[in-house]
Amino acid sequence: MIASTPSPPYYAVIFTSLRTEGDNDYSAMADEMFERAKQQPGYLGFESAREGLGITVFYWRSLEDIKNWKANERHLIAPKTGGEKWYEQYKVRVLRYKSRYLC
Amino acid sequence: MIASTPSPPYYAVIFTSLRTEGDNDYSAMADEMFERAKQQPGYLGFESAREGLGITVFYWRSLEDIKNWKANERHLIAPKTGGEKWYEQYKVRVLRYKSRYLC
Repeated sequence: MIASTPSPPYYAVIFTSLRTEGDNDYSAMADEMFERAKQQPGYLGFESAREGLGITVFYWRSLEDIKNWKANERHLIAPKTGGEKWYEQYKVRVLRYKSRYLC
Repeated sequence: MIASTPSPPYYAVIFTSLRTEGDNDYSAMADEMFERAKQQPGYLGFESAREGLGITVFYWRSLEDIKNWKANERHLIAPKTGGEKWYEQYKVRVLRYKSRYLC
């Protein structure tokens, strides 16, 4: 469940969200999103937890892979086609891995 | 609950963990860790959720701030002084913010 990411370079997309009430087909969308991500080139793993606040981290080999993933997922996660029905609020951050921990 | 981070540059420390059984003073340690982080220079916010897997993201202004924080927190989170009693497994990643999302 802790993603076993490879040696760097790699990138993370942190998706933080507060959901709306009810399922509204969210589970089906989320399952499909995870399944599709796994099949994308450059996919390295994910970590996810929700406790009121939801945090999902996807790990990718390159920025190019993230761009391709986003292009592919646009119809699933774009605000215009459903963001409002699933999320009260959300934030997406793209980050580049720097180090395991700093000494 | 979604951290309202400022304009970049900034950094994230993603701490992913699986806990051991029981509290073992974990809650007290975690509360203290959050309180102390908030008082450190360069602290920008945090996001946290646990659902089996726990994900906590701390946001910081600079790598220097993360180094100082780590030096300060060593007695709390270093494996030798307690990691094993709280965590079955954990991983810490330091990342640099790249973009809001890629177009």
